[in-house]
Amino acid sequence: MSNVSPEQLLAQLNWRYAVKKFDPSRTIPDSTWTALEESLVLTPSSYGLQPWKFFVVENPALRKELLPHSWGQEQIVDASHLVVFAVKTNVSAADAERLTSWSTKVRELPDGALDGYKKMMVGSLARTSPADIDVWMSRQVFIALGNFLTACALLGVDACPMEGFVPAKYDELLELTAKGYASRVVATAGYRHAEDKNATLKKVRFPHAEMIERIV
Amino acid sequence: MSNVSPEQLLAQLNWRYAVKKFDPSRTIPDSTWTALEESLVLTPSSYGLQPWKFFVVENPALRKELLPHSWGQEQIVDASHLVVFAVKTNVSAADAERLTSWSTKVRELPDGALDGYKKMMVGSLARTSPADIDVWMSRQVFIALGNFLTACALLGVDACPMEGFVPAKYDELLELTAKGYASRVVATAGYRHAEDKNATLKKVRFPHAEMIERIV
Repeated sequence: MSNVSPEQLLAQLNWRYAVKKFDPSRTIPDSTWTALEESLVLTPSSYGLQPWKFFVVENPALRKELLPHSWGQEQIVDASHLVVFAVKTNVSAADAERLTSWSTKVRELPDGALDGYKKMMVGSLARTSPADIDVWMSRQVFIALGNFLTACALLGVDACPMEGFVPAKYDELLELTAKGYASRVVATAGYRHAEDKNATLKKVRFPHAEMIERIV
Repeated sequence: MSNVSPEQLLAQLNWRYAVKKFDPSRTIPDSTWTALEESLVLTPSSYGLQPWKFFVVENPALRKELLPHSWGQEQIVDASHLVVFAVKTNVSAADAERLTSWSTKVRELPDGALDGYKKMMVGSLARTSPADIDVWMSRQVFIALGNFLTACALLGVDACPMEGFVPAKYDELLELTAKGYASRVVATAGYRHAEDKNATLKKVRFPHAEMIERIV
């Protein structure tokens, strides 16, 4: 490992902004995109459950179809990449079993070594209503979004997180429901257009002292 | 700006893990911590509303008091820093007004220049039930968590995200309710203990092909 300096981190985070207009002629190089996908996979989650799937929509006709269900925001068609962040629906004891059996294999543990862990997860899920499980798991998807946006900024890739879309339409057009997932948020990634006026707007954040409180 | 390479990004993300045991003798240097706080402030959010506050609990006695309400997880007292990620409760038209009047000032715009934007936000909030506004805003807090964990990893700071705590107890002991906030997730940050066995465990992620699907 080789750390980034605080100055470099902040320079990259200050460089990023929610891109309004992407340059449709520019594509994220494969090696960079592969790292961004890997970053998504490396996102931490509650219990390590990874209750998500990231759909990368490459089909241009499909992206065009999504446009009217995205408040007409052109980033959907112009950006190099479009990722739909989806939560796994109906997370249950089977997911706890899937995780512990996979962990047992990856870590080369004896069978049953993670039974206590599995039991704890199953108990947690059993005590939680389906609606609250969805709330809980959907929040994990937003950890992935935060990780992704910061990873993009670090690599010098522009992005725009988008909650302005019709999830039910996305789920239908991308066949997510049938696959057991539900769209929660979207991110477009690529490169800012030279004419994107938002690029030069001053970043608006409330004063530090209103956002951070030290309890001493 | 100066980009990080894909290799460096992935090296840092692979280096991170959910720390089980922190070295209580090590403190994050001020310059590093300041950058992490600034990273939190720079987190993007829906409409730019920043519906959150990050409480950094420095009082050791208070951290000890939180321990039994954190499933007894020692990271709460051993880590260099403890951050409670809280959502603003009762987000309403007043928050849209607060954002647009602050933006108008920061960007030196004429009065009323952001009235259309404000109207759109107020309309969105008016169409959403209080419970759904909480769901929506709470998700933003998890973008901040994702950003924070990645920022820590980049700076070589260890961290542990924690959902295993009793929010109502945190809200009471930290007086968050009275301040108009509600705790949603916790992160501890510092440096791994030499004896933390979790540091050497193989990272468990489901296969890339099960987490990412390209729709072509």
